[in-house]
Amino acid sequence: MNRSRLIQAANGQIPFDLVLKNVQLVNVFTKEIYPADIGICEGYIAHVTQPGEEGLSGEREYDAQGKYAVPGMIDTHIHIESTMMNPTNFAKAVLPHGTTTVVTDPHELANVLGLEGVRYILESSAHLPLRLYVLAPSCVPSALGVETSGAAFNASEIATMLEWERVIGLAEVMDFPGVIYQSERMKEILEVARKKGCFLQGHVPFLTGRGLSAYQCSGINSDHEVVATNEAIYKLRAGMALECRESSIVQNIKALVPALKACNFPPNATLCTDDREPDDLLNEGHLDHVIRRAIQEGVPVLEAIKMCTYNAAQLTKLYDHGAIAPAHVADIVLVEDLINFTVNEVFIGGELVAKEGKMAVELTSPRHPVEKRNTIKLKSIPSAATFQIEAGQKEKAVVNVIAYDSENPLLTKLAKIEVLVKDGKIDISQNPELAYISILERHGRNGNISVGLVQGLGIAKGAIASTVSHDCHNLTVIGREPEDMALAAQELAKCGGGIACVAEGRVLAKVELPIAGLMSPKCVEELAPETFHLKKAIKGLGLVGDYPLLRVTTFALAVIPEFKMTDQGLVDVLSQEFIPILPEEN
Amino acid sequence: MNRSRLIQAANGQIPFDLVLKNVQLVNVFTKEIYPADIGICEGYIAHVTQPGEEGLSGEREYDAQGKYAVPGMIDTHIHIESTMMNPTNFAKAVLPHGTTTVVTDPHELANVLGLEGVRYILESSAHLPLRLYVLAPSCVPSALGVETSGAAFNASEIATMLEWERVIGLAEVMDFPGVIYQSERMKEILEVARKKGCFLQGHVPFLTGRGLSAYQCSGINSDHEVVATNEAIYKLRAGMALECRESSIVQNIKALVPALKACNFPPNATLCTDDREPDDLLNEGHLDHVIRRAIQEGVPVLEAIKMCTYNAAQLTKLYDHGAIAPAHVADIVLVEDLINFTVNEVFIGGELVAKEGKMAVELTSPRHPVEKRNTIKLKSIPSAATFQIEAGQKEKAVVNVIAYDSENPLLTKLAKIEVLVKDGKIDISQNPELAYISILERHGRNGNISVGLVQGLGIAKGAIASTVSHDCHNLTVIGREPEDMALAAQELAKCGGGIACVAEGRVLAKVELPIAGLMSPKCVEELAPETFHLKKAIKGLGLVGDYPLLRVTTFALAVIPEFKMTDQGLVDVLSQEFIPILPEEN
Repeated sequence: MNRSRLIQAANGQIPFDLVLKNVQLVNVFTKEIYPADIGICEGYIAHVTQPGEEGLSGEREYDAQGKYAVPGMIDTHIHIESTMMNPTNFAKAVLPHGTTTVVTDPHELANVLGLEGVRYILESSAHLPLRLYVLAPSCVPSALGVETSGAAFNASEIATMLEWERVIGLAEVMDFPGVIYQSERMKEILEVARKKGCFLQGHVPFLTGRGLSAYQCSGINSDHEVVATNEAIYKLRAGMALECRESSIVQNIKALVPALKACNFPPNATLCTDDREPDDLLNEGHLDHVIRRAIQEGVPVLEAIKMCTYNAAQLTKLYDHGAIAPAHVADIVLVEDLINFTVNEVFIGGELVAKEGKMAVELTSPRHPVEKRNTIKLKSIPSAATFQIEAGQKEKAVVNVIAYDSENPLLTKLAKIEVLVKDGKIDISQNPELAYISILERHGRNGNISVGLVQGLGIAKGAIASTVSHDCHNLTVIGREPEDMALAAQELAKCGGGIACVAEGRVLAKVELPIAGLMSPKCVEELAPETFHLKKAIKGLGLVGDYPLLRVTTFALAVIPEFKMTDQGLVDVLSQEFIPILPEEN
Repeated sequence: MNRSRLIQAANGQIPFDLVLKNVQLVNVFTKEIYPADIGICEGYIAHVTQPGEEGLSGEREYDAQGKYAVPGMIDTHIHIESTMMNPTNFAKAVLPHGTTTVVTDPHELANVLGLEGVRYILESSAHLPLRLYVLAPSCVPSALGVETSGAAFNASEIATMLEWERVIGLAEVMDFPGVIYQSERMKEILEVARKKGCFLQGHVPFLTGRGLSAYQCSGINSDHEVVATNEAIYKLRAGMALECRESSIVQNIKALVPALKACNFPPNATLCTDDREPDDLLNEGHLDHVIRRAIQEGVPVLEAIKMCTYNAAQLTKLYDHGAIAPAHVADIVLVEDLINFTVNEVFIGGELVAKEGKMAVELTSPRHPVEKRNTIKLKSIPSAATFQIEAGQKEKAVVNVIAYDSENPLLTKLAKIEVLVKDGKIDISQNPELAYISILERHGRNGNISVGLVQGLGIAKGAIASTVSHDCHNLTVIGREPEDMALAAQELAKCGGGIACVAEGRVLAKVELPIAGLMSPKCVEELAPETFHLKKAIKGLGLVGDYPLLRVTTFALAVIPEFKMTDQGLVDVLSQEFIPILPEEN
């Protein structure tokens, strides 16, 4: 930015690059709406005035025809990987919805590709009009010592990333025991980030009381994991910023709005989407959807807008974002109907980038080297035998099984189940409630393969495989039939990863995610129907629960209680210890 | 601060250093008040809880007996020099009023002593419980090229200061033409400060429209000079932070409160005192007085408190100040009566420092080398002849005279007056409306002495001299009688500076300010009566206007329109050009 030109334009010495005429300005400082013209230069707002001020001339002019001018919206917490799109297609998907800035945590890519994954996000977004900022992933891997990841970050990696342009903070610090009980690794990471004076983003589901205070005393001051009204009130009173989340998986706005009201719409509440799947992006939208949800639940429209503009800018320390005022980035969303929040035009840096739901500029991107590489590095091609569990020469065996709780679909317990043994292998044909679960290390490190059983999934036939497998993104394969499991796994190994659904020796649905096994080069219009079809196919196998993809991709997430499977075996999450599949009593 | 201990205390692993029990917590995030206990460790708030939480134990406990706990108050703009006290006595004067943090601009000291003056403020406050932060003076001297100052700061000095501990930003940028028209000096200074990412404080009286936008586009985003409601609304809408001022000289709260209301109490409004004289500090108070004024004018008490705590912390980027919540500094003010805002106890970093209007700890300070030095370096001892104006061999002369406007007491015009000449010298004995005005360079640089005439001061006899003489702090002497002027000047030269009032060969009143000719080693209880007596004596000479000290100390302030006197002569402020005392027509 040439600041001299900006000042000259503001001062009336040169014409503006663009004059945006005839808006109803939404002022997030004063919570007022009034008519205005906006002078823009060098991508920044140079001057705001009453309509028709004399001498307000620009190289270009744009008549907003009385639409509301809202500051470009800022998502304070999103994992782009969850949209399955690369940055270019992600930008195309969210820009028409009025999102002009995202603060993303690329920790999925980081778990697969390490620093290269973070660089990939930065490099492949450098040319985009979307303002994409990165938070340095703080917990790679998320469950140290019980799983094999593609990379591990310590303080030195964090320090390296924090020096990179557009890396503006430390991403959601999920390892709260490490924070509270001061593990060396977390202590060092936090020290590096505090020294930098940047945004330290939190992640502390359910934590209140002394634990929360200890967490805050480390310098972390936000949370997007709050799902309950009372917890939200507690955290807001404690001075934690509340990043109110409405994702594809968890919808918290309904529960959080009463807390926002009770706390008089505090200055440190923002909106975020965390994980957003392509079909939801296409059908519901992005931050515009979250704003609509907030308004529906009773948030005054100016407060809702302020949350995802001014408040978000303050929290993330992007001080020249989030307001329509001199010296702020000229990111402006024109909206005809504020209550239904229908986004008409979107300007970024004073350029019209989207109009009436469509991109107004073409975004192309050279294919990044990371996008050309198959990252699924299995030591051998899986076969049906890969998924058999050896049980020795007996007729029956007791097995430690991961049991889904139908009341709380995220929670898993441990169950001991007696099953048949046939030819020395576990045979679940008489146990329709069971399925095999296998995690295959896929980063080319040790070739670990674990196989166990899971109860209560509902899956009646076939198999599902996924290289999206939080957070280490090994290859997860579940199924009733080892043959189908092998097919699903082989399919993914071939195409560089993704999610596949197989039954009776046939691929029913597949979403290919060849970029790190996590993301696709396709755009939202292509991915949305594929995803929709995949979800339907998975449900068709009998999988219970409203979020089939989430269920498939979190079998290996060894930070969600109580029992999970990693490539190293069955893990007791709370103790972070391994449990044998076949207990000693056999 | 040992952060490990803080986290451990929060986490319940070690006792707190102090438990402040039984408060009514004023929550500036949620604008609520509710009962609480506060656990403190390492000078920070570690935990806040409902009263009586089990296991909340500390090395020490303090029963607040149900008083309101307000975050320690932050003054976002003050010149300590105006209080005439050194940092230690200043701290003693303001701490009992609940001010726990000040952001000070030591530009008076800087004009006299340069970087050493700034270091003096930092070094002589390092031991104090008061949190004293410094903004790097941006305009030293304020009127470059028309006066002789003790120092001049360019970008390199600014860069040097911004590396020092407790220097947190750039002080009020008064040279708005330099900003808007991009003088090299201001451009470089602003670039240094922007790069640092620190607080850039503004000073733009009356400026709105294109000029204000240009000023903002330089990155400066606050103003404390707003005196009118409409101007305040304009600036708040434009996104300028409003530092609402109630000083000894200008009281703006009354005019600004309607603007704050109209703008829905924006997040970027703070309170400040700018210049506060010792007798006002003693009699009215400090920020507690400003809060009371705001409440009297109709600001809801929680908004008023939020302005000088949370909002002030955000503006100055002191993010761990300004709230009672974990990880914030344990600066807490206990107040029995919130509406009358009577400060009872003041804690800083968890230590009780003041109680019931008195200090609770003893503050002593070793005498700093700067405090031992006489900075009044005149080339020769002034005599009556010094103040005579040579007019040649004629009977009458026309003189260019600074004329005070009785309507607007700050404004000066130019008048041409015919006066008698006696023995080759101007003789004002027949012009009771005139007085001599002389500015003597006193930094030991060039010994400049200018002498002119001023009209409409009201002074009927005697003389007043002052080494407080904004902003260069040369020696200003005004008077009817050259003999009295010489006596007043000699008095100050002897004692190292100050303000003296003389009549009929006798010193009527004098406040000695031997620290840089600006400040006294005395405490507020001693200085207040001296100052009161001095003001009375000055008024006794006939000086018109409500603020006798202000008038005396701004004769040389060549940035306030329209005509001023510097050591180099009579200055046309708007053109920054010199005008001859005796115009050519003579």
